[in-house]
Amino acid sequence: MNGAQSLIQTLVNGGVEVCFTNPGTSEIHFVAAVDQVEGMRTVLGLFEGVCTGAADGYARMTGRPAATLLHLGPGLANGLANLHNARRAFSPVVNIVGNHAIYHLPYDSPLTSDIVSLAKPVSGWIRSTEDVASTGADAAAAIAAAQTPPGQVATLIVPADCAWSEGGVTATVPTIPQPTPVESKTISQVAEVLRRGEPAVMLMTGPALMDPGLSLASCIAQATGVRLMFKSASRLQRGAGRVRLERFPYPVEQALKTLQGTAHLILVGEKPPITFFAYPDAPSWLTPESCQIHTLAQREEDIVGALEALVEELNAPDEPISAYEFERPDLPRGDITPEKVWASLAVCMPEEAIIVDESITSGRGAQRWAANAPPHDWLFHTGGAIGFGMPVAIGASVACPDRKVITMQSDGSAMYTVQALWTQAREGLDIVTVLFSNRTYAILQVELKRLGADAGGPKAQAMLDLGNPNIGWVKLAQGLGVNASRATTIEAFNQQLESAIKSNGPHLIEVVL
Amino acid sequence: MNGAQSLIQTLVNGGVEVCFTNPGTSEIHFVAAVDQVEGMRTVLGLFEGVCTGAADGYARMTGRPAATLLHLGPGLANGLANLHNARRAFSPVVNIVGNHAIYHLPYDSPLTSDIVSLAKPVSGWIRSTEDVASTGADAAAAIAAAQTPPGQVATLIVPADCAWSEGGVTATVPTIPQPTPVESKTISQVAEVLRRGEPAVMLMTGPALMDPGLSLASCIAQATGVRLMFKSASRLQRGAGRVRLERFPYPVEQALKTLQGTAHLILVGEKPPITFFAYPDAPSWLTPESCQIHTLAQREEDIVGALEALVEELNAPDEPISAYEFERPDLPRGDITPEKVWASLAVCMPEEAIIVDESITSGRGAQRWAANAPPHDWLFHTGGAIGFGMPVAIGASVACPDRKVITMQSDGSAMYTVQALWTQAREGLDIVTVLFSNRTYAILQVELKRLGADAGGPKAQAMLDLGNPNIGWVKLAQGLGVNASRATTIEAFNQQLESAIKSNGPHLIEVVL
Repeated sequence: MNGAQSLIQTLVNGGVEVCFTNPGTSEIHFVAAVDQVEGMRTVLGLFEGVCTGAADGYARMTGRPAATLLHLGPGLANGLANLHNARRAFSPVVNIVGNHAIYHLPYDSPLTSDIVSLAKPVSGWIRSTEDVASTGADAAAAIAAAQTPPGQVATLIVPADCAWSEGGVTATVPTIPQPTPVESKTISQVAEVLRRGEPAVMLMTGPALMDPGLSLASCIAQATGVRLMFKSASRLQRGAGRVRLERFPYPVEQALKTLQGTAHLILVGEKPPITFFAYPDAPSWLTPESCQIHTLAQREEDIVGALEALVEELNAPDEPISAYEFERPDLPRGDITPEKVWASLAVCMPEEAIIVDESITSGRGAQRWAANAPPHDWLFHTGGAIGFGMPVAIGASVACPDRKVITMQSDGSAMYTVQALWTQAREGLDIVTVLFSNRTYAILQVELKRLGADAGGPKAQAMLDLGNPNIGWVKLAQGLGVNASRATTIEAFNQQLESAIKSNGPHLIEVVL
Repeated sequence: MNGAQSLIQTLVNGGVEVCFTNPGTSEIHFVAAVDQVEGMRTVLGLFEGVCTGAADGYARMTGRPAATLLHLGPGLANGLANLHNARRAFSPVVNIVGNHAIYHLPYDSPLTSDIVSLAKPVSGWIRSTEDVASTGADAAAAIAAAQTPPGQVATLIVPADCAWSEGGVTATVPTIPQPTPVESKTISQVAEVLRRGEPAVMLMTGPALMDPGLSLASCIAQATGVRLMFKSASRLQRGAGRVRLERFPYPVEQALKTLQGTAHLILVGEKPPITFFAYPDAPSWLTPESCQIHTLAQREEDIVGALEALVEELNAPDEPISAYEFERPDLPRGDITPEKVWASLAVCMPEEAIIVDESITSGRGAQRWAANAPPHDWLFHTGGAIGFGMPVAIGASVACPDRKVITMQSDGSAMYTVQALWTQAREGLDIVTVLFSNRTYAILQVELKRLGADAGGPKAQAMLDLGNPNIGWVKLAQGLGVNASRATTIEAFNQQLESAIKSNGPHLIEVVL
């Protein structure tokens, strides 16, 4: 057994059964080995950001890591933006990067680079394999590291000679630590605060945004009147029958108003809210001075256990009440607008859809439209590195082949990882991409306007403009093997969305705004 | 004057007049400032790898740096692969990366990351601006650093508050060091070796591959019989009337044969040749033990001065002799093959064309076809990070708007930075892209076959296969605003190439192999 075979066998034994890959020469022994070991599905991406985003999406829907397989430093570099998002989503990822043979590195051949320095900003764990006998054990350690609460990117660098040499040893994954329980003192303290009945907000993330966490939070809200909110979410379970909660707003002016009058902010896996960017005329810190901050659970602690304990401590009713009703809006008519596109989605959304949301300015307030649709999952953009939507959709669809994935995608962001469409076609994935074509970096237009009415002349405008030429999304998608259509009226969109949802396989709808 | 204005004014005063950019919120004050300062051309890329590749191409053709403007860590990450190539080409680049306001960084907001760690592997110089008053001076230092011989990527990280605050000060570029002269003792020693008349190879790079370096080398060859070779080249001046030289082969078996029987290897800006990758059955080091290595000049030394001194020391004739004759081959007929595509190019190539070569397996032996065409420049893939061709063509075309740029592009590599086509359309650049569509990572097929006749089953094949679905390059290019055509016969290709070369603006020809 060579090192590559021991690597793949260890991955499969350890529950890592999908590898999103864009390999190169230094990974060729891994490529050769996938047919020699049973049980590894390999999914090719034509750009590494597709692979890393897919691994993020897969982790969000399964809670388990997929592997990547990337080609040396530049291959990793191409995958870093979506690994950054995965890091901010606490997604477990076994990020495998090939390297030159150890003895070849001192020659500094053209593709040599400092892979550790590249990997560090996105990785919670990094190891470079030192000999063939360690390859399996290192893979096992990477699997455990990736799943160490709350989940992280574990980067394993595998030199080519550790893959090609004989002497590979399959290894067993070490015990994966469980989330640390929250001390009962903390539970009592938070319960005491909530019992006061003063205006309070519970800012939640991670497992608190999925059942049973959500239901437990609702019981607490029912008992105490605390407002339930979320700000950063890798995955949120939503729709009819699911618990109501508010989204913390992105725009700084609205964000500053959100906690006005709040006496207590209870953090459930979250950090105190701060602005996404800094602004010369606004603070970064969003909690009013008069508001006290209490932490129920850290992100790596047992969040669901803490909510359970709090329900018990409060003697809260054990049935959540504040759930969304099932309700389909009317099909929208008239001009095409982002709001109507979301309304149309609310009409057509099938049961258990997975919504991948990189709609940016076309998605402001989007969730209220879909709140009454059938139960669904919502995957959010956690890290702000754009080019997130279409790759993450791949991973979600590979993880959940029987569920419809709907990517709500802004045009500017889509271009960063447009190659994802090809993988969607290659794998026949059941993904509908709703492409908001507003032909501008609209969020930057908003930021430019903040600078003053006269800010930005023609050169500035050209730097934010995606027109001239307009991107032909139908041709682009078709060129990458994906069926596509174009909607310039909401009636056409309604029809195209319904048809795309009914059929199977990838489809892109260009919404011309 | 705010920091952003001082930054741009300093760049313009320092001769940096083009900025290839994909900005975000943290760079919005830079965006606003480009209309307030005269003289900066901004070119938008829809993916950062397009911007960094363009900066590389611009530097290769002008010898001067362009600026980039990238959005925080993830924006830089997306640009790293082509910065890796720029680093290996010793291209001067002023790589500007926006960052959060300094006071915002401790909050660790979602887009925060360790930018220095990301930048280090590709940058010869890194600085993070610490206050608004330093912004101009830091830009000036970056300009000087980028041009410090032999040229490098200088990364300047500009926090948003250093851009938006008042108090910017325009700065003057410090004196840029000149290449160090080579000691006369070294010249004498190399001359003494060459005078022996023993089999010798001069392995050259950098300025030695352009006039007057090339002509000087030819004079030396004429006087001593030394073989002239190159291995890594950022830019090579070629074609009729230019000096003949051999390319050091890439495949390891051929590479090992190249220096057999050579008694002396003279390095002119180069390192001793090594293989690109390591192989279990072959050495990395390519110089035979019996061959002595001598260094005429290091890469950062005065290479042209050293060649001049050597010509003088050898009393070599001052006219080069071994030049390519002007000769147009016949137009190829019959089946379409990569070789015939190159032959067709040799027939149609206009004077002073710039050939950007990322043809990989479709380009083996390519240069011999074009050697007798009119004088032209050839830009090589120096770093091995693929996705190089179409972005570098942008920079070359911006640098030399009156010259035809022809990108010889493999399909697999093209997909990494396919967004480049849109910028070619936006700027109306006079670029013909010859897209070799063989629908496979052909070089990896070669590597897989090296492992044995039976290496690689169906999964391995699928990991190297770009078919299923085939990429529709004509639609893809048209979707990005570029005229495109498809050639399935060499006759059609001949016609399409001739027509594309005659017309102006970007055009892509898909060569269906």
